[in-house]
Amino acid sequence: MKTLHKLPLLDPESGDDFQHIFLEADEGAAADWSVQSYTLRGGLQEGVQVVEIHNGKLHFAVLPTRGMGIWKGECGEITLGWDSPVKDPVNPAFINLEERGGLGWLKGFNEWFVRCGINSMGAPGIDTVTDYSGNSMDVPLTLHGKIANIPARAVSLEVTDGAIVLRGEVDETMMFGPALRLNVEIRTDLGSDAMTITDTVTNLGQNPQEHEMLYHINYGETLLENGSRFVAPFKQVAPRDPRSAEGIKTFDRYGDPQAGFVEQAYLYDLAAKRGSRETAVMLRNAAGNQASVLRFSLKDFPCFTQWKNTAARADGYVTGLEPATNYPNPRRFEREKGRVITLKGGESRNTTLTIEALDTKKAISEVEKEIRQLQKTVKGIVDPEPLGKFSG
Amino acid sequence: MKTLHKLPLLDPESGDDFQHIFLEADEGAAADWSVQSYTLRGGLQEGVQVVEIHNGKLHFAVLPTRGMGIWKGECGEITLGWDSPVKDPVNPAFINLEERGGLGWLKGFNEWFVRCGINSMGAPGIDTVTDYSGNSMDVPLTLHGKIANIPARAVSLEVTDGAIVLRGEVDETMMFGPALRLNVEIRTDLGSDAMTITDTVTNLGQNPQEHEMLYHINYGETLLENGSRFVAPFKQVAPRDPRSAEGIKTFDRYGDPQAGFVEQAYLYDLAAKRGSRETAVMLRNAAGNQASVLRFSLKDFPCFTQWKNTAARADGYVTGLEPATNYPNPRRFEREKGRVITLKGGESRNTTLTIEALDTKKAISEVEKEIRQLQKTVKGIVDPEPLGKFSG
Amino acid sequence: MKTLHKLPLLDPESGDDFQHIFLEADEGAAADWSVQSYTLRGGLQEGVQVVEIHNGKLHFAVLPTRGMGIWKGECGEITLGWDSPVKDPVNPAFINLEERGGLGWLKGFNEWFVRCGINSMGAPGIDTVTDYSGNSMDVPLTLHGKIANIPARAVSLEVTDGAIVLRGEVDETMMFGPALRLNVEIRTDLGSDAMTITDTVTNLGQNPQEHEMLYHINYGETLLENGSRFVAPFKQVAPRDPRSAEGIKTFDRYGDPQAGFVEQAYLYDLAAKRGSRETAVMLRNAAGNQASVLRFSLKDFPCFTQWKNTAARADGYVTGLEPATNYPNPRRFEREKGRVITLKGGESRNTTLTIEALDTKKAISEVEKEIRQLQKTVKGIVDPEPLGKFSG
Repeated sequence: MKTLHKLPLLDPESGDDFQHIFLEADEGAAADWSVQSYTLRGGLQEGVQVVEIHNGKLHFAVLPTRGMGIWKGECGEITLGWDSPVKDPVNPAFINLEERGGLGWLKGFNEWFVRCGINSMGAPGIDTVTDYSGNSMDVPLTLHGKIANIPARAVSLEVTDGAIVLRGEVDETMMFGPALRLNVEIRTDLGSDAMTITDTVTNLGQNPQEHEMLYHINYGETLLENGSRFVAPFKQVAPRDPRSAEGIKTFDRYGDPQAGFVEQAYLYDLAAKRGSRETAVMLRNAAGNQASVLRFSLKDFPCFTQWKNTAARADGYVTGLEPATNYPNPRRFEREKGRVITLKGGESRNTTLTIEALDTKKAISEVEKEIRQLQKTVKGIVDPEPLGKFSG
Repeated sequence: MKTLHKLPLLDPESGDDFQHIFLEADEGAAADWSVQSYTLRGGLQEGVQVVEIHNGKLHFAVLPTRGMGIWKGECGEITLGWDSPVKDPVNPAFINLEERGGLGWLKGFNEWFVRCGINSMGAPGIDTVTDYSGNSMDVPLTLHGKIANIPARAVSLEVTDGAIVLRGEVDETMMFGPALRLNVEIRTDLGSDAMTITDTVTNLGQNPQEHEMLYHINYGETLLENGSRFVAPFKQVAPRDPRSAEGIKTFDRYGDPQAGFVEQAYLYDLAAKRGSRETAVMLRNAAGNQASVLRFSLKDFPCFTQWKNTAARADGYVTGLEPATNYPNPRRFEREKGRVITLKGGESRNTTLTIEALDTKKAISEVEKEIRQLQKTVKGIVDPEPLGKFSG
Repeated sequence: MKTLHKLPLLDPESGDDFQHIFLEADEGAAADWSVQSYTLRGGLQEGVQVVEIHNGKLHFAVLPTRGMGIWKGECGEITLGWDSPVKDPVNPAFINLEERGGLGWLKGFNEWFVRCGINSMGAPGIDTVTDYSGNSMDVPLTLHGKIANIPARAVSLEVTDGAIVLRGEVDETMMFGPALRLNVEIRTDLGSDAMTITDTVTNLGQNPQEHEMLYHINYGETLLENGSRFVAPFKQVAPRDPRSAEGIKTFDRYGDPQAGFVEQAYLYDLAAKRGSRETAVMLRNAAGNQASVLRFSLKDFPCFTQWKNTAARADGYVTGLEPATNYPNPRRFEREKGRVITLKGGESRNTTLTIEALDTKKAISEVEKEIRQLQKTVKGIVDPEPLGKFSG
C-alpha cells in the first residue's frame, strides 16, 4: 500500500486546534474518496469535532468529541443512523450523566454508533467501588457509562491507495479509580461497503480494573420499516423483561412507528463458527434489498442485545443491534453472573467488528444463507419469558 | 417596512462560529440604533455569546448562550437589571444544576430577564417521571429548570426601518423524555421604550409532555430603592410562606438594602381586562419618575409572583416580577393544583409579553390609573397568611 | 525595580481571547528568563490555558483555567510534580464534582500545586447550609471543594528587571450562598530557586461565610524515592486513621513504589518561630542533594497534613505536603473543632507561602539544621494511634 496522507488532526502535545482539512482523490483515481473535518457550532453542539469519511461508496461522520462515536452514515440509498429527538451532537461539557436518576446519557443520544462503557455500561444502578482510602463505598453508576461523553485526546488520519484509517485515543481515567484508555481504529477500504472498527482498551494502572463495552448501533428508516427483519444465528434468545415478553412471538420482525410504543429488548446467546467463534447478524428491510450486517467474534463480544423501539418517528423510531462484552444490566448483576471482564494492571484487550451495508437482494440472501448455516449447528431456543441468566 | 438587514448570527447547519457584527443606523436616520454581537472571555463567562441591541432609546444585551435570557438593559437613566454576587454571565458548561441540593441554578443567576422552565420550574423537589422502559421513577427536579442553562442552537437578526428583531431557538430535548423546543422573538421598535418577547414552546415529540414557564424579571437600583412601589391589579394576593407573611402589610412597598434580609414572595391572582385578559403590572421608584411595566395576558401567564429580596447590595438587592404559567412551587404541587400545562404531541404554545421603561411622571401616573381601573373591577383581597391554594 | 512588561493575559471586560505571548530576556540579561502562554487542545484539556514561567533557573506552568493551580515545574534536575493516571490538565467544564459519591475532583487531579477550598475542602461529607429562604438544608460537600475547577476570570503578568509576577482572580460565588473571591499572586525572582504565592480570599457578600483552604503540593520522582525523607518541626503528629497508624514508625520516610499501597496521612501540629510563627518543612531525596522546602507562617496555615501514596508508578506514586487553614476532614468535623475560618462581610484574608527547590547538599543540610532548631523548642510527640483532636 502506498501512503497518500498521514497526519494528526488532534494532538495533545502540539497545542494546535483540531485540524480542519479537506482531502480528496486525485482525478481519475479508482475510488472517488474524500475526507473532511470540521467543528460544529451553536447550542449544545458548540465545539463538537467531526471527521467525515467518504470511501467512494460508504460515507460516515465520526465524532472525536463524543468518544469516537459515529454520528451517521450512508451507503447509496441506505441510511446508517436514525432520527433522535436530540437533534444535534452534544458536547459532553453540557452533559450531566447523573441527571434524572442517572439517565443524563439520554440527553446526548443520537448517533448511529455509540460506545457504552468502558468501566461500566448498562442500566443505572448502585455498585460498590473503592475510595481513596481503600474503603468500599456504594455509588450510583449511570446509564451506559462515560465513554461516549469523553472527547478524544488524539486523532490521526491515514489514507493509502487502498484504505482510509482514522485513529483516536480516549482516556477514561481518574486518580484512585479506573484508568482505562481506549484506542480506536476505524478502517474502510476505498470503494467498499464496509468499515472495520478495532478497539483496544488498556488498563493504564497497576491495579486490576473492571471493563464493560457495548456497541449501541442504531438504525431508523430506511432500514427500519414495517416488515424489516433481524436475522441472527442463536442458541437462545429471551426477552429482557415482561414488556419485552409481550412481543416475543415477533421478536425478529419490526412494525410501523407506533405512538406510545414502549421499548423491548431481547438478549441473545448467539451461535458462531467453531474455533474463530465468528458470527454475523443482520438487519434487513422489508423488500430484502437493503441491509446492514455486523460481523464479529464471540471471543470479543460474547453477549448480544437487540433493542426495539418502534415508537413514533418524533420520539425516535429505532432499533439497536448491540454486540457487547456482557448484557446491559446493572454492573453488579453482570458481575454476579461472571460476565464482567477484569483487566490486570497494564493489560490490553483488543476487539474487531465489521459493519457492512448491502444493497442487493443477492448479497443479502447470501448473508441469510450464511446465518442459516450457523443456525443449523445449534437448536435455537426462543424463551417466552425473561430468564434470570440473562437479566435481573 | 423595509428590511435593512437580515442575517443569521448562529446557524447549526453552517458550521460557522457565532457571528461578531456591528451594525448601525445610517447618518441622519430617525433613530440612532445599533446592534453588536460578541463573545465573552475569561473565567466562567468563557464562550458566552452576547447580542447588544440599541433601538436609539432602549438598550439591552441578550445572551444566546443562556437560553436567550437578557443580561441587562438601560433606557435613559433607568437601569434594567441588578447587581448579583455572580459577576459574570456563566457558560452553562460550568453549571451543575444538581449541586447544593438542586440549587446549582443560583451559580449562574445574574440576569435582568431569565426564563425558568420549560419542562419544570420552581422550587426543587422530587417528582415522578417515566424512564426508558415506561416505568415510573422518582427524580429530583432542580430549581427553576434547565432552559436558562441551554445555549441557543440558532440565532438570527432582522433590522427593518421600523424595528429590530432577534430570534433564537433553544432545544430542551432528550430521548425517552421531554423534547421541547423554545423559539424566542425579541422585538423592539426603533426609538421606543419597549420590547416585546414572543415565545413559542413546541413539543417535538408525539407523547404529551408537561410544560412550565416563569419569567424571572429582576430589578435592583435604580428602580428599586426605599419607597419603590409594586403596582398591580389583583383579585387576591397571599404570602408564600410564614416569612413572607411577616411583610404582608407592606407587600407592595420596598425598603432600603438590609443585611441579612431573608427573601419574601407574594403570589397573585391578577385582575385583567375581560376577553383579552390583558393586564399590566409596574415597578416604580420612590419619586414616581422611573418605572418598568410588564404587559401580558393572563391567558398566557395566569399566575404572578412578586419576589422581594431587599438584602444588602453585596448580597443582591433585587426584586423579581414573575409572570408565569403557574406558581414557582415544586412541580408535583402545581400538578395537584391543576396548573401544569400539558402539550400534546406536536403542539405549540405561543405567548407574548411587553416590557416598557417609563421615565416621566405623566406616563407612570397614566399606567397607575390604568391599573386602578382594572382593580376597580374586582375586590382585591390581601391574605395575611399563606394559602394552600397558592403554595404548599 | 524597572518594569519591563505589564499586560493583561485575560480580562473579563475586554472580550479578548486569552493572550498567547512569548516574552524573553534581552540578550546579555543577567537571567535568561521567559514567559509563554498558550491554550491546550484535545480531549479533556480542550481550552485549558497555560502560563509557563521560566525565571532563568526555576521553571513552572500555571493553569488559570484550573483556579490558578500549578501544573508542574522543574529546577535544574529537580522535578516539581508527579505522574498521575490523569494525563492531561482537565477543563472544569468536563468535571462533575458530585460524581462517584463526591469524588469527581479526582478526575482532574494531576497538578503539582492544587488549591483545595475555598468555601470547603477535605473529605466529602454531608453538611448543613442555608437555602434561599433562610432554611437549613443538608447537602453533600464534595472532595476538596470547587476552587481547582473554577477558571480564573482575570490574569495579568508583570515582569520587572528583578522578578516575574503573575496575578489571577477566581470567583467562587453564587446567589444566596458563599460569594468568595480568590486573588492569587505568584512571584519569582529572576534567577532564583523559589517562588512566593500570596493569596487573598475576600468575602464579596455582606453575610459571614466560612472559608477553608489547603494547598495540595505533590511530589513524585525524582524527589520521591526509596529513602526520601520528610523533615518538619512538630509538636505533635498523629496518623489520620488506622491504615495510617500502620506506618507511623516510618511516617517521615518513603519507600519504593508498591502496587496496591493504600494511602496514609499524618496530621501535624507544627512548631514555629515565636512571634512570626514562621516555619519550614522539607521533602528531600535519599541522597540529600535534592529537596523542596515550603516556608509559611502558622498564622496563615496552622494545620499541616503529609500525604503518602507510594503506590505503583502507574497508579500515581506521590506524596503531598499540605499546609492548610484546617485539617482535610469533612467540614462539619472541622467546624466542631473550631478550626473553620469565618470571613465577615467584605473581609479579606491574606496568606503567603514560599516554595524553594534546593539542589545542593549544603543548602539542604542548612534547612535541616534550621528545622532541627525549631524542633528543639518543643517536645515532638508522635502518636501511634489516630487522635480525635485531629481526625474523626
